[in-house]
Amino acid sequence: MKKVLILMELNAAQRERLEAAGAGAELSFSRPDRVTEKEIQEANVIIGLPKAEMIKASENLELLQLESAGTDAYIAHGVLSEKTLLTNATGAYSQAVAEHALALTLMLQKKLHLYRDEQRAARWKDRGTVSSLRGAIVAVVGLGDIGGYYARLVKALGAYVIGVKRRPGPCPEYAHELMLTEQLDQVLPRADVIMSVLPNTAATRYIYTLDSFRLMKDSAIFINCGRGNAVSAGTLYEALSQGMIAAAGIDVAETEPLPEDSPLWALENLVITPHVSGSHHLPETVERIVDICAGNLSAYLSGGKLKNIVDFATGYGK
Amino acid sequence: MKKVLILMELNAAQRERLEAAGAGAELSFSRPDRVTEKEIQEANVIIGLPKAEMIKASENLELLQLESAGTDAYIAHGVLSEKTLLTNATGAYSQAVAEHALALTLMLQKKLHLYRDEQRAARWKDRGTVSSLRGAIVAVVGLGDIGGYYARLVKALGAYVIGVKRRPGPCPEYAHELMLTEQLDQVLPRADVIMSVLPNTAATRYIYTLDSFRLMKDSAIFINCGRGNAVSAGTLYEALSQGMIAAAGIDVAETEPLPEDSPLWALENLVITPHVSGSHHLPETVERIVDICAGNLSAYLSGGKLKNIVDFATGYGK
Repeated sequence: MKKVLILMELNAAQRERLEAAGAGAELSFSRPDRVTEKEIQEANVIIGLPKAEMIKASENLELLQLESAGTDAYIAHGVLSEKTLLTNATGAYSQAVAEHALALTLMLQKKLHLYRDEQRAARWKDRGTVSSLRGAIVAVVGLGDIGGYYARLVKALGAYVIGVKRRPGPCPEYAHELMLTEQLDQVLPRADVIMSVLPNTAATRYIYTLDSFRLMKDSAIFINCGRGNAVSAGTLYEALSQGMIAAAGIDVAETEPLPEDSPLWALENLVITPHVSGSHHLPETVERIVDICAGNLSAYLSGGKLKNIVDFATGYGK
Repeated sequence: MKKVLILMELNAAQRERLEAAGAGAELSFSRPDRVTEKEIQEANVIIGLPKAEMIKASENLELLQLESAGTDAYIAHGVLSEKTLLTNATGAYSQAVAEHALALTLMLQKKLHLYRDEQRAARWKDRGTVSSLRGAIVAVVGLGDIGGYYARLVKALGAYVIGVKRRPGPCPEYAHELMLTEQLDQVLPRADVIMSVLPNTAATRYIYTLDSFRLMKDSAIFINCGRGNAVSAGTLYEALSQGMIAAAGIDVAETEPLPEDSPLWALENLVITPHVSGSHHLPETVERIVDICAGNLSAYLSGGKLKNIVDFATGYGK
């Protein structure tokens, strides 16, 4: 009988759904900070986010189902054996992250960050012109679940969407135009909003250089809800403090937590949120994670087809 | 030949559009702070926002076309003679105000105001759960152009919309349900978001009492982009400081500018913007105002039908 170890925080209904999906296996529940070495070593299936160092020597682990979309800690060499299947929770976070990115976009367009600052000083002060998503050109860089979800939202609000992705293909119905990542320099000068949601790979590391920001409109808004190392802290600081673009909103930073002495904190035209868009703060997110985990557990035990299998070479979907 | 006095700030193209619309009349251009008593007295048509005290004795004024949606200063007794037609720019502001209200809604749902505060203290701090417009019940109180526009936006983002208006009628296509203002107390307990965009009339003055806020969910978000006196400063302070609702966003205040010593400024769960949503900060707004003014000027001179005629009894459209 397969041993399934579940390391997620769940309510009663969610736990029941996993128990139903795991019928016929031996299920046990624990938490990453309480689970023992022995429990990890004996498990054939782990669901959740075990500490990477604890699973390194695991001989019995056949499936690791992550509750995150990010896979960085687990695709590193020597963490998982070759026979272990790694699946993630891609898709579960798309609504939460896309909505967070939209909220950042509108906040910056309507200058609500500046009005919050004025409010803190008890000042009733007009901060001038604003912009709109209606008729705006929005470049969505990274067209996974999150990018697609965000594209649908801004399109519904009247934006013209340029999708940017690695591989050629048909233009998805949520975009007006499809461009390739290698054509990014042609896209940047046209965009009023650049929403970046790239994963952490060798190809996307520091993809936005100072030259990228020089190519953007000085009225452009840049949003990063992907991985922090798509742009270095120094580059972002230069671009914003020199007014190469109008404003930026980031939920991720090159170093997290962003160091207390980072000059980024004080920039008026930058809004920083502490990598919370992809947390479990939206009830729908947890429900969708449980959907994926239950579906994959059931498929695994019955010899069915699993979703969200991670490619170790790229860190995302095969 | 009719004398038309235009008191708006216009670019060359906009000026040309008004000149074309006023062909056959005698057009002159000035500004409210520079125009003379004599120019006002001689004008048959004024377009813009003249000082109310200057037009009081005007015998020749046949049409006053405002560039604002608000009419408060002009419907007061004794400002305009009975023979003067008053038209406003209702509709021109709907996109700007509705988008501002949407930005406030999302900012509060995603706690971006709290993250801005944390940023100012250089703190990378998680502020917990958020909410979504998807599946949320949004009550739009006041279904004029702005309310209708906002309803379309939130509906496109997945909200369930309850429209609330004075008079019975068919449910508009942008709402899922239509309720009457007199049924407001039945609507408030159901709503996750209450977006109020009521004009300033005797019936809407202080329409939201402390009991109204007690009826709302403690997780509710209240937005006011209508007139400030729909809720008193004291009531709003009580409701927010006692946690009767989660948060509020206001672009209008009972007294404007909001006094520097108002306790409202310091409320963490209130976002204040200084009556800017209906300004000319969005280029589209000015274009749409010129549309209305040119259309009405042309209609007036040719004996056609005017739009946006103001009812002096209510202060808004007949």
